[in-house]
Amino acid sequence: MSAAAWPPLREELHGIEPYGAPQLDVPVQLNVNENPYGPSAACVADIATAAAEAATTLNRYPDREFVALREALASYLSRDAGDRGIAPEQVWAANGSNEVMLQLLQAFGGPGRTAVSFAPTYSMYPEYARDSNTRWVAGRRSEDFALDLDAARDLVKRERPSVILLPSPNNPTGTALPPEAVGVLCEAAAEDDVNGIVVVDEAYGEFRRAGVPSALELLASYRNLVVTRTMSKAFAGAGLRLGYLAAAPEICDAIRVVRLPYHLSAVTQAVALAALRHAPELLGKVDDLRAERDALVSWLRAEGYDVADSDANFCLFGRFADRHAAWQGLLARGVLIRETGPEGWLRVSVGTPEEMAAFRSALTDVNGERA
Amino acid sequence: MSAAAWPPLREELHGIEPYGAPQLDVPVQLNVNENPYGPSAACVADIATAAAEAATTLNRYPDREFVALREALASYLSRDAGDRGIAPEQVWAANGSNEVMLQLLQAFGGPGRTAVSFAPTYSMYPEYARDSNTRWVAGRRSEDFALDLDAARDLVKRERPSVILLPSPNNPTGTALPPEAVGVLCEAAAEDDVNGIVVVDEAYGEFRRAGVPSALELLASYRNLVVTRTMSKAFAGAGLRLGYLAAAPEICDAIRVVRLPYHLSAVTQAVALAALRHAPELLGKVDDLRAERDALVSWLRAEGYDVADSDANFCLFGRFADRHAAWQGLLARGVLIRETGPEGWLRVSVGTPEEMAAFRSALTDVNGERA
Repeated sequence: MSAAAWPPLREELHGIEPYGAPQLDVPVQLNVNENPYGPSAACVADIATAAAEAATTLNRYPDREFVALREALASYLSRDAGDRGIAPEQVWAANGSNEVMLQLLQAFGGPGRTAVSFAPTYSMYPEYARDSNTRWVAGRRSEDFALDLDAARDLVKRERPSVILLPSPNNPTGTALPPEAVGVLCEAAAEDDVNGIVVVDEAYGEFRRAGVPSALELLASYRNLVVTRTMSKAFAGAGLRLGYLAAAPEICDAIRVVRLPYHLSAVTQAVALAALRHAPELLGKVDDLRAERDALVSWLRAEGYDVADSDANFCLFGRFADRHAAWQGLLARGVLIRETGPEGWLRVSVGTPEEMAAFRSALTDVNGERA
Repeated sequence: MSAAAWPPLREELHGIEPYGAPQLDVPVQLNVNENPYGPSAACVADIATAAAEAATTLNRYPDREFVALREALASYLSRDAGDRGIAPEQVWAANGSNEVMLQLLQAFGGPGRTAVSFAPTYSMYPEYARDSNTRWVAGRRSEDFALDLDAARDLVKRERPSVILLPSPNNPTGTALPPEAVGVLCEAAAEDDVNGIVVVDEAYGEFRRAGVPSALELLASYRNLVVTRTMSKAFAGAGLRLGYLAAAPEICDAIRVVRLPYHLSAVTQAVALAALRHAPELLGKVDDLRAERDALVSWLRAEGYDVADSDANFCLFGRFADRHAAWQGLLARGVLIRETGPEGWLRVSVGTPEEMAAFRSALTDVNGERA
């Protein structure tokens, strides 16, 4: 009988459950902010053709620099980036924006360095920090989930983070950053004694309301700004695992040092390119989802709920005396949402009109039962 | 003008070139140990069908536990594993065996811990250690690239590594471990004051000569043994990026804590499953390549070269007074091999009969020119 711990996992990982929402098979799945609209038949056919073409040379390693994909992503991002556009050498991609985030922390964080964000926020951020051995510091958001810019700047001066993670819209609250926040924090991070990068996580960026700018417009102004995106949400590609970023070329070059060689498969590159060719069709569905989201916020407020402003494809609403009971009541009615965020709140993804009708009906029902 | 370094990359990464062989477009590519045989038309068609099916639900996240793929990989591995076979809960997979290795080091290595291997060996190993902030110690192999077991055991006792990396066959030498090595080192690593895992990297395992056992046979005997494989080589899937391992279920569970959620895309899972259904066809080509490899070793030795024993789909041969000139001479004749390994040696992958004829002819030519 051995006295040493088995298996010899790192001490700080003992007893930790792997990250991930329950994957349950229920009729209405509104728990992981997926896009409810699958690709069209034409898009599926294009993906099959692209995969078949990639398969003919599958015995060869993929293009390590994924040049064609970087060009297509740069072209797509340029529409949100103002006059200067985005060049391919400003783009990097990986298997999901979580791999992009891990690579950023491996290059710019790590032992002896600090990453900062503002809670409540995306629950994977501290995991990226932990897995890259980066010290993690979470500031707080105000009661309405907004960022208090003065407090945020003070935290940056005090903690000197080499990486600041700013989701906009934030998950799980759905709230976007105030327009001036990115500039203020990029300047604070650019001070010599901080020398950090600011990562604006726009995973849900395409769902923002009219008039809300993308941080992509500011790339030309701040060399320490990184804007991340994903094909999981607006591009209806959660199953594809393709996250990407735009930043100064020197930042992309720095990531190349820590990336695993050939990290993007030939099939992933080909399928992502095929999906990008269908951007107009996919973004049309985004407009439908934005309208559905605004209607959901209005309905929830009319029903008397507190609802955080949402620029995403989900809403955080509350407050429940027993949110777990409400979550369970919805699940019993075939509607799976997410028990996440501050105590008393629940998060629901925006689905099809039919799915949202099912959600409204189930929630009304759950409420009536408890009245 | 800022006084701080820009970009604020970690100090130890400054000036480091990203890993990777030159990707040059030449007629005969024998530099990265790819399988020269692409998938058959039937296999390509199956892959296209699988990708199309995955694409219809691409808006949904993939199966985070990749259950079907783990089952198929377990079934495939069982043929090399002796009576006990391999169960799905003993299998883990990721985007290339390099992601598998990084995950192993994130879970079992990291700050304050040590990883060990024996040089000359795979040049990515120290990069995995660096990127996971694990201390790296390289022992030495003997002159003939074999592992001196007594010296290896002494190194383990002295350095107390939490991870021991043992490629078999080794890259770039092609040499397999002596049969008793795995057991000896698993026992040394199991001592309470070491408490480490032993990772036998069988990336090229399917190419081993008749009579050379796989470490999979020993899984039932040593709970701290991990055997890694890849679909890049025997399965002609370098473009697919699918690496995997077999180990005790507790080791797979430990990796789940550090893996990025949904790290394997739905498309990757589907395409890998399709390729696994074509295992008999693909492994038939492996037999051809083993015969071609043995013929290559014989020819090189008959030509007067030193050649390391090879159980892989490549050979290390030498010794050249000026190996770079020889490499350049081959490249000028349209044959790209790899300038790697100890000074004076070159590594050549085993290609088709036509490619090997081109290699032999070019090498003879280069030699004649310099005589």
